Amino acid sequence: MKEKILLAHGSGGKLSHDLIREVFLPAFDNKFLRELTDSAVFNRQGSRWAFTTDSYVIRPLFFPGGDIGKLAVSGTINDLAVMGAKPIFLSCSLIIEEGLSLSTLKRVISSMRQTADDAGVEIITGDTKVVEHGSADGLFINTSGIGLLSTKSETSSPRIKAGDKIIINGSIGDHSIATLSGREEFDFRTQVKSDCAPLNDLIGKVLSQSSGVKLMRDPTRGGVATILNEMAMEQEFGIELWEERVPIKQETIAISEMLGFDPLYLANEGKVIFIVEDEEAKKVIKILRSHPLGKQSEIIGRVILEPRGKVYLRTCIGTTRVLDMLSGDQLPRIC
Amino acid sequence: MKEKILLAHGSGGKLSHDLIREVFLPAFDNKFLRELTDSAVFNRQGSRWAFTTDSYVIRPLFFPGGDIGKLAVSGTINDLAVMGAKPIFLSCSLIIEEGLSLSTLKRVISSMRQTADDAGVEIITGDTKVVEHGSADGLFINTSGIGLLSTKSETSSPRIKAGDKIIINGSIGDHSIATLSGREEFDFRTQVKSDCAPLNDLIGKVLSQSSGVKLMRDPTRGGVATILNEMAMEQEFGIELWEERVPIKQETIAISEMLGFDPLYLANEGKVIFIVEDEEAKKVIKILRSHPLGKQSEIIGRVILEPRGKVYLRTCIGTTRVLDMLSGDQLPRIC
Repeated sequence: MKEKILLAHGSGGKLSHDLIREVFLPAFDNKFLRELTDSAVFNRQGSRWAFTTDSYVIRPLFFPGGDIGKLAVSGTINDLAVMGAKPIFLSCSLIIEEGLSLSTLKRVISSMRQTADDAGVEIITGDTKVVEHGSADGLFINTSGIGLLSTKSETSSPRIKAGDKIIINGSIGDHSIATLSGREEFDFRTQVKSDCAPLNDLIGKVLSQSSGVKLMRDPTRGGVATILNEMAMEQEFGIELWEERVPIKQETIAISEMLGFDPLYLANEGKVIFIVEDEEAKKVIKILRSHPLGKQSEIIGRVILEPRGKVYLRTCIGTTRVLDMLSGDQLPRIC
Repeated sequence: MKEKILLAHGSGGKLSHDLIREVFLPAFDNKFLRELTDSAVFNRQGSRWAFTTDSYVIRPLFFPGGDIGKLAVSGTINDLAVMGAKPIFLSCSLIIEEGLSLSTLKRVISSMRQTADDAGVEIITGDTKVVEHGSADGLFINTSGIGLLSTKSETSSPRIKAGDKIIINGSIGDHSIATLSGREEFDFRTQVKSDCAPLNDLIGKVLSQSSGVKLMRDPTRGGVATILNEMAMEQEFGIELWEERVPIKQETIAISEMLGFDPLYLANEGKVIFIVEDEEAKKVIKILRSHPLGKQSEIIGRVILEPRGKVYLRTCIGTTRVLDMLSGDQLPRIC
């Protein structure tokens, strides 16, 4: 392992996984953390709870389609929702660089409140720290969240098996492209807006109308490619991804080519990947497409028996290749 | 209000209060936050929970008696414990500056684990972000925590009344003095170590053996003076603090005089202030002194009827004066 922390340790890719497996898991060893899911799930007093945390360090603070406040509320809600939990309460802890304008802070806080209201969650506890000018970059936000799972969901979902379908609720890469367009060092204009949004309502509708969902993850840092790898890793199945079926905007393709990014590794902040029972896939697509955040939903792949633990990409020209998780750091400070 | 965020907005004193009342409360308005307690308390599914969050930005990362990891676990445990909750689970979210040595990170994580083990809590979910060199200062840690309250404690504690006693579990200012001694810009040596410690066991023992405790707060940022003001603020009572009874180390007095600090405003990280029924005060002192973290416990004041909402200091020379909450920023980045 490297002797110093690199930007890539925070990218969600290979080095992030190394850090978790070599530093955090051995130290904080317990059955909850070992699951490495988006939220920890625990039972207490006859109820089933999810608990999660995320710090947001995105640059710039405001970007087309959102801002760090909307992101901080949406991201933590989504980490609860993909575990099947109904998000209830959030915390909000700010690290502010001395000199931040009060009007900027107010805009961010107002955006957090709006997003929380829209999603039906309450921000009930908080903290503020201020560090000297030069010791942070404007504003960092941590939100932690608590959600409730139905005790029904305790019965483990049916086993994932070959033939199950992979579904996503819309176009990939929007968040990364929109964020980059807001950075001084990148000189391009785009109509693409961040997809940043709370997904609890969308996911709730799917779960209440179909029993076919076996697993959900949100493809944030590391993108669709990395999250599919996490879903397949150490499992008794593999995943085949169909490139031509993955929804993506033409502008995202063009900008990615220009900047040398692979869109499959771009972060999303309003997307969820479902593994769904084959027989239920069309129904789930129909439910998703009836929701404002799922209009471009598509079946983008399937579960395969071999090679297990890996993700195969079937490209538009018909070839297949192994799709690895992100190695190195494609885009720092995207969330 | 100021147009830019100043260090003093994070000091826990007057400007922090302004920020909470003028920005956060109006935006995140709800009954939980409005209490302005160390943790939010809510009822769900027949249980009573406490939820809290804190970000730690202390400089330096290692100081006599502790480090940022021990502090991050202890501080959040204490915010739950002073609400009468039994801390159960913590989250851990890191913001790391690119270039931090892996061995430093491992030392901090190991300290977090040790402190959590000692306190009987588990760290069950986490997040890591890395920002460019120069965009943060080494390492910032957020911990959020969940605790359970007995439903018994739902019956509101007996009303605070004149004659109730103010108790603290030991000497003040140790944490601030120890932290400063670790900073390059201060040129002094001291034997004083930070009091940084999880107080849940100490508080649990008091609550299980005495029913006389009416209110608890931990005098962290802003120190004893500020926290007593928060306890009395907008209440039907005042507080009289007896200077000569406040436990303080000779070295702390000497260093405070040298640096121009008032020890009553120095942050503590292993102290709790109790308001206790007069008849139970001696018993509580006995329980506290039988615990390793309470050997120097003292009754340091009493609740008075007038003037209400204020804190009066009865000085060693017999005069009295109003003791206000911290205004301005005495010591940045102390927690």
